[in-house]
Amino acid sequence: MSVIYDKVALIGLGLIASSMALAMKRAGLAGRITGYARSVETRETARELDLCEVCETAAEAVAEADLVVLCVPVGAMGAVMEEIGPALKPGATLSDVGSVKKAVIEAVQPHVPAGVHFVPAHPLAGTEHSGPRAGFAELYDNRWCILVPVEDTDQGAVDRLARLWRGMGANVDQMDAEHHDLVLAVTSHTPHLIAYTMVGVADDLSRVTDSEVIKYSAAGFRDFTRIAASDPTMWRDVFLTNKDATLEILGRFTEELFALQRAIRTADGPALHDYFTRTRAIRRGIIEAGQDTDAPDFGRKAGTK
Amino acid sequence: MSVIYDKVALIGLGLIASSMALAMKRAGLAGRITGYARSVETRETARELDLCEVCETAAEAVAEADLVVLCVPVGAMGAVMEEIGPALKPGATLSDVGSVKKAVIEAVQPHVPAGVHFVPAHPLAGTEHSGPRAGFAELYDNRWCILVPVEDTDQGAVDRLARLWRGMGANVDQMDAEHHDLVLAVTSHTPHLIAYTMVGVADDLSRVTDSEVIKYSAAGFRDFTRIAASDPTMWRDVFLTNKDATLEILGRFTEELFALQRAIRTADGPALHDYFTRTRAIRRGIIEAGQDTDAPDFGRKAGTK
Repeated sequence: MSVIYDKVALIGLGLIASSMALAMKRAGLAGRITGYARSVETRETARELDLCEVCETAAEAVAEADLVVLCVPVGAMGAVMEEIGPALKPGATLSDVGSVKKAVIEAVQPHVPAGVHFVPAHPLAGTEHSGPRAGFAELYDNRWCILVPVEDTDQGAVDRLARLWRGMGANVDQMDAEHHDLVLAVTSHTPHLIAYTMVGVADDLSRVTDSEVIKYSAAGFRDFTRIAASDPTMWRDVFLTNKDATLEILGRFTEELFALQRAIRTADGPALHDYFTRTRAIRRGIIEAGQDTDAPDFGRKAGTK
Repeated sequence: MSVIYDKVALIGLGLIASSMALAMKRAGLAGRITGYARSVETRETARELDLCEVCETAAEAVAEADLVVLCVPVGAMGAVMEEIGPALKPGATLSDVGSVKKAVIEAVQPHVPAGVHFVPAHPLAGTEHSGPRAGFAELYDNRWCILVPVEDTDQGAVDRLARLWRGMGANVDQMDAEHHDLVLAVTSHTPHLIAYTMVGVADDLSRVTDSEVIKYSAAGFRDFTRIAASDPTMWRDVFLTNKDATLEILGRFTEELFALQRAIRTADGPALHDYFTRTRAIRRGIIEAGQDTDAPDFGRKAGTK
């Protein structure tokens, strides 16, 4: 692999940015990598780990950078962009890694100077751990990164960013922001909210002790707790900024749940059996697709690091 | 390990029974193992795999057995028991592996002959696969098996069955049927129902294609599909027979979900952040408990076989 950008700047140094730094180094994709995080502690940790050249201001980190990637929570992107906008090099590419795209584009776009190519992106990867120490070079291997170019984006800039993500191990896809936010509401945002809720219910129930929940959690609940352990700030921002799609999917979810609840209450065995047979077939489709994409464990090993 | 029962009979030869046969053989816990399944195809597969001595009737399988284990779906236990009751040897132990205990006891108890010791049990183990070919000897290693003795059960019979389960690799615990059913409604039954629902919603949504759901399912949804792929008959029976506890937990779940939905709709960031911080702490407790019990992956490797 050869160098794709002479200088890459990462703004925010959590799990996603630190994994990007390690993945870029692994394949030699960047001449230099600079980074900035608002918290002194995070900057010090990143220095200690030798993740990248850690700067004391965001403006210093992005100066002369050919690619700048915003790796801060979705709710902070607008403010960060307002600060670094004037410091961006003409001709540079600006990207981000937010889990929501419409809201990020609305917040960031107004501050993008003329001559800078804005290519929003979303790598579908993560673990329940956060911060610079949580990063690892393999996080993006065989995972998807969705690029969400805005209108009139320079195709050369899009292709170059796609090359970078492929170099970091990811498969690259492209869609518009509205569709991205709906797809993610279904595959990620609503499932996370549901997992959070179930874990909260279990904890509240005074007749069942936490230690019982913990001991017997192998049977279904464990996967929920893993999901529900993700970064609270990131998820707060996801739900606040992908509100419409999440509420739509939640509405459908409760509608279906009530139908199943009614089937239980009225002891409608055939309805339950049909439903469960259908969902089993969907899972089989996912397994087959997983084999097709050469990622039979869907990144589980990386995800449970 | 030495022989605990001279003859063990397994009624039903699916994932749970075939794994028991293999685990008993691994440790030499049974002098002989006989088995019966209603379907000819299952009996033939079991013979082909040389799982146990496969009989053509349930009565033949249980004759002279020191331990008989009912490994059929919860809804079939009563009928099976009515059939084999008269063939049980005086002094034998009768057990089962049903995921629900109150309903099984109500269905089975009336048919237990005097002099036979009924010790209901529930091993908390399984995978999304079913049938005799799905079994493997390690399924119970480091998993919990909950014994639910009925009133006046012979303590010697309970201790002996506990020794068998420990010999098959499990940790053994004991509780009453009502509490068991509530604990499982929280840790297993309701999470399964929710996972089934979410997978159904995703499949229904015409604006998002199945192939998109499949490709991008790494981010949260994948764990739901794994749960939702379990045996439909088993789960239908679970919900029909653990109706009260499941409906109670579902009621609490929807109450909490509506509170979170309202927080999203009203953009109450602090409420969302607090909730997600609390659930993260619960997960940490589970991980710590997992390390304590020497099962840091909670059987995930076995579970994803």
